[in-house]
Amino acid sequence: MGVGLIGGSIGGALRRCGWEVIGVDLDPARTRRARERGVVDTVVATPADAGSVDLAVVATPVGHLVDTVRAVLDTPAAVVTDAGSVKAPVARAIADPRFVPGHPMAGSEQEGVDGADPDLFDGATWVLTPTETTDDDALARVQSVVSAVGAQAVVTPPERHDALVALVSHVPHLVAATLMQLADRRAAEHRVLLRLAAGGFRDMTRIAAGHPAIWPDICAENRDAIVAVLDELTGELDRVRGLVADSDREALLARLESARRARRNLPTTALRPDALTEVRVPVRDRKGELAAIASLAADLDVNIYDLEIAHSAEGPRGVVIVLVDTALAERLHGGLLALGYRPSLRPLT
Amino acid sequence: MGVGLIGGSIGGALRRCGWEVIGVDLDPARTRRARERGVVDTVVATPADAGSVDLAVVATPVGHLVDTVRAVLDTPAAVVTDAGSVKAPVARAIADPRFVPGHPMAGSEQEGVDGADPDLFDGATWVLTPTETTDDDALARVQSVVSAVGAQAVVTPPERHDALVALVSHVPHLVAATLMQLADRRAAEHRVLLRLAAGGFRDMTRIAAGHPAIWPDICAENRDAIVAVLDELTGELDRVRGLVADSDREALLARLESARRARRNLPTTALRPDALTEVRVPVRDRKGELAAIASLAADLDVNIYDLEIAHSAEGPRGVVIVLVDTALAERLHGGLLALGYRPSLRPLT
Repeated sequence: MGVGLIGGSIGGALRRCGWEVIGVDLDPARTRRARERGVVDTVVATPADAGSVDLAVVATPVGHLVDTVRAVLDTPAAVVTDAGSVKAPVARAIADPRFVPGHPMAGSEQEGVDGADPDLFDGATWVLTPTETTDDDALARVQSVVSAVGAQAVVTPPERHDALVALVSHVPHLVAATLMQLADRRAAEHRVLLRLAAGGFRDMTRIAAGHPAIWPDICAENRDAIVAVLDELTGELDRVRGLVADSDREALLARLESARRARRNLPTTALRPDALTEVRVPVRDRKGELAAIASLAADLDVNIYDLEIAHSAEGPRGVVIVLVDTALAERLHGGLLALGYRPSLRPLT
Repeated sequence: MGVGLIGGSIGGALRRCGWEVIGVDLDPARTRRARERGVVDTVVATPADAGSVDLAVVATPVGHLVDTVRAVLDTPAAVVTDAGSVKAPVARAIADPRFVPGHPMAGSEQEGVDGADPDLFDGATWVLTPTETTDDDALARVQSVVSAVGAQAVVTPPERHDALVALVSHVPHLVAATLMQLADRRAAEHRVLLRLAAGGFRDMTRIAAGHPAIWPDICAENRDAIVAVLDELTGELDRVRGLVADSDREALLARLESARRARRNLPTTALRPDALTEVRVPVRDRKGELAAIASLAADLDVNIYDLEIAHSAEGPRGVVIVLVDTALAERLHGGLLALGYRPSLRPLT
């Protein structure tokens, strides 16, 4: 539902994996373009017309998410996920075992279905924020699709996701726009200013060139987290101002050095490691076991490259099997033991 | 003087133009490396050892600029310029007709002489901030060198330069470092955070990865301008916070749209236009005429591609000849008339 940049890219990526993809969009021009670009097989007018699909992906603007997800859950779709960039409101509003809230952290300079690219998610992080009602099998299904399109799933609670994206996405966007506005205001007096704006300023303001239409909704949906981060940021900038005003060179240098270390340690896209280990975790067939294990892995910074739930034929037991970097398998092992699980490890050769 | 990234790049660029380049640096390892990299012809121990050079370029750290420029002005060097990123302190401290304060707006991810690159200034903006005592011929000489190495000279007063770089360089650096620190602090709790940092955040914090050693000096030298811009920025961010807290979608959208327009209009490197016009401006041989004309061109956003001062053989008169884009020649013409000059225009074929 919604064949823009994200929806179209998901469609294209799934088609390449052999899925049959049905596009749904209110805008006939967009569905026509989606067919031309080969990111959908067919298009239909409403979610109901799509019938009993295996997976429905809602990629509409944030402001329409809840209503669209509700409409899709009224159809016989087996599993439903969304691609909204704020997660708590939709996760709070909808309690359905088939719904797995999600957020692919990928974008493009290009807009709309014309920017759709089946490679968009290659190496990207794709956050999943299952709720208490989300079914483990539905989560596993979405996680396997995320892996199939080349992204890495990170499972975390909706509220934590929202606090983090406020810090690494929403507030940076507002700061970039504000810096650009200050420079532009000054440029009204002295056009020469803009010729002094070198690479660093260009880098810092690049995201301000993006289409602003999505931002008022995002700011409204994630209001509290954004306000909290803005307060934290202006508080820190006031402290920096104090150091500059006092010419406190040592404190300034210490701050900049710590920032430099952090920036250099900012992980680049994780490549698939050479050695993988299978971690098998016996679980009772209880709701949320998979979400708990995947959340733990995310908290421990252990990437899950694949996962599977093996249900027991007899009784309410099963095994969650996750594939992780061999170098980090013991870390996950320790965490699982601490939570009372009894996992076993098997290096893959 | 100082064969690091900037000094080495200037040396390499000048050698390519046929100059003989003498390197001076306190660090023997650096001068050796400069010779190996071919960015200097020879090295000497002190400015005095270089003898009566045509042009001396001081590219030492900002904190040592004034002393080094003074030492160089004690030699018979014909013209002296510097490459410091803050201009008012050095311009205020030194009153010598041979001194032309400058700031090439170019940098590199690489550091030191190993990052030196004769192409570093290709298309870059190079600010010149002549003072009341700067000789017009010295300014013309530096401006022709700037053009020869592929950069575009912009002439503006030192204080204005400092206010502008506070806004487009110094404060953005402090903001990038602060954002990175906030994210890193949060990441101490949840490592997963850093996997959510997508392209926009990477762009915005890239400059924080640079070597911080130069920044305490820059912040001390340009303290007042930086504090003023930080105050303006936090004031604007507080206003943005208010709009987010009130979910004022229209005002947010208007701000982001204005920032988007400004970012899209941020000029990229100016290419040499197809058609050039020679603007000939008769002047009395009075100090500062060239600086006044070049400053006017910068204020009018008219790029000067070349310039020459033709001194009259008889009496205290001369002609400043500047080469500008034909499309903008009338704009400069108007500005010159307004200031009381009597220029003539001649399109080049």
